[in-house]
Amino acid sequence: MSTRAAYRRSLDELWVRMAELARLDAVAIEHASIALHDADISMAESVIAGPPSVAAAAAALEEDAALIIARQQPVATELRLVTGTITITSALARMGGLAQHVAQTARMRAPQPAVASELNAVFEAMSRTAITTATALTAVLDNRDAEGALALQAADSVMDDLHRDLFTELLARSWAHGIEPAIDAALLGRFYERFADQAATVARRVQHILTGA
Amino acid sequence: MSTRAAYRRSLDELWVRMAELARLDAVAIEHASIALHDADISMAESVIAGPPSVAAAAAALEEDAALIIARQQPVATELRLVTGTITITSALARMGGLAQHVAQTARMRAPQPAVASELNAVFEAMSRTAITTATALTAVLDNRDAEGALALQAADSVMDDLHRDLFTELLARSWAHGIEPAIDAALLGRFYERFADQAATVARRVQHILTGA
Repeated sequence: MSTRAAYRRSLDELWVRMAELARLDAVAIEHASIALHDADISMAESVIAGPPSVAAAAAALEEDAALIIARQQPVATELRLVTGTITITSALARMGGLAQHVAQTARMRAPQPAVASELNAVFEAMSRTAITTATALTAVLDNRDAEGALALQAADSVMDDLHRDLFTELLARSWAHGIEPAIDAALLGRFYERFADQAATVARRVQHILTGA
Repeated sequence: MSTRAAYRRSLDELWVRMAELARLDAVAIEHASIALHDADISMAESVIAGPPSVAAAAAALEEDAALIIARQQPVATELRLVTGTITITSALARMGGLAQHVAQTARMRAPQPAVASELNAVFEAMSRTAITTATALTAVLDNRDAEGALALQAADSVMDDLHRDLFTELLARSWAHGIEPAIDAALLGRFYERFADQAATVARRVQHILTGA
């Protein structure tokens, strides 16, 4: 294999590995959401322990991006890809961390549910949105899909609306669960909202790599 | 000026500009904290509008780091500096965003104070810790101080302890302020805690750049 072909291949691999991290995030937020809704301790613990570690994979990916920079002299799109990988990787690792925060909250309250029953609908919608977002992000990275990246940035507003709905419910006069469940719900809401926000950041970055815009 | 000297200078500038971002973060969290404690709307708005924008400065810095990579072939410590700049910059921009979240909460509740009086002590301690941390981080970046970077990572536990104290107060039986102030306080606590955590991330990264460890 020529040096040039090896270089092309190392760039291709950055995409493949970013997509793999996004896929791990999709699994993590799905399992964390199941743990939350079913108050399932062992599911929560599998997310918290979570091999393969997204953080470790992210650190390795960032190091390899740096090695490509050191060995090659990427320019233009390729340079945007390699430096973008470093930023994207840190956002993908953060998404994994947020899924773990959801799982930690589920584990802390289990076998009681962490979420009061009247919030089930909004949290189910937030969970679905987060899973869909991370799955779409995986496809965007897999297919280097600039249009998909643009669509994902717009979808971030769905989560923002749900986040507002959640606060409306929490602050309703009818809330009868006291302080601790309200704080849990507010923080959980923020974890989901941040998860979607980080996905939008990644999508913006992918678009920049692909189009320069 | 020789090419080599120009290159050295562009690397030096990365440190100077990272330190400048950290200094802006220190100012932002100080002003946000004043806005919070004094329920001062115009102070809150100055942080929210916040020229010069940390986010814009961060984007420019990241672009320049990429340009250095494109034009030079940094290796070893220099490569760690240039790639580390990209990660550090994103953490420093996040710290500015968290200071804005504190300011937004202050503005939302003003002219009422966002923080119940029995939480003043813990939030004043969190504010002081955040300001001290960001100021120390500025010095670490200014002086490329590996020992200072190590000390900063250890100091993160002070904020974690305060964060725990805050939840103890919020969940005490004597809490009489209802749901909304409890949620505000929990989120504010998280903003301060994340601010310090991001500072520790930057400090870890600086240590890695300087020592390779």
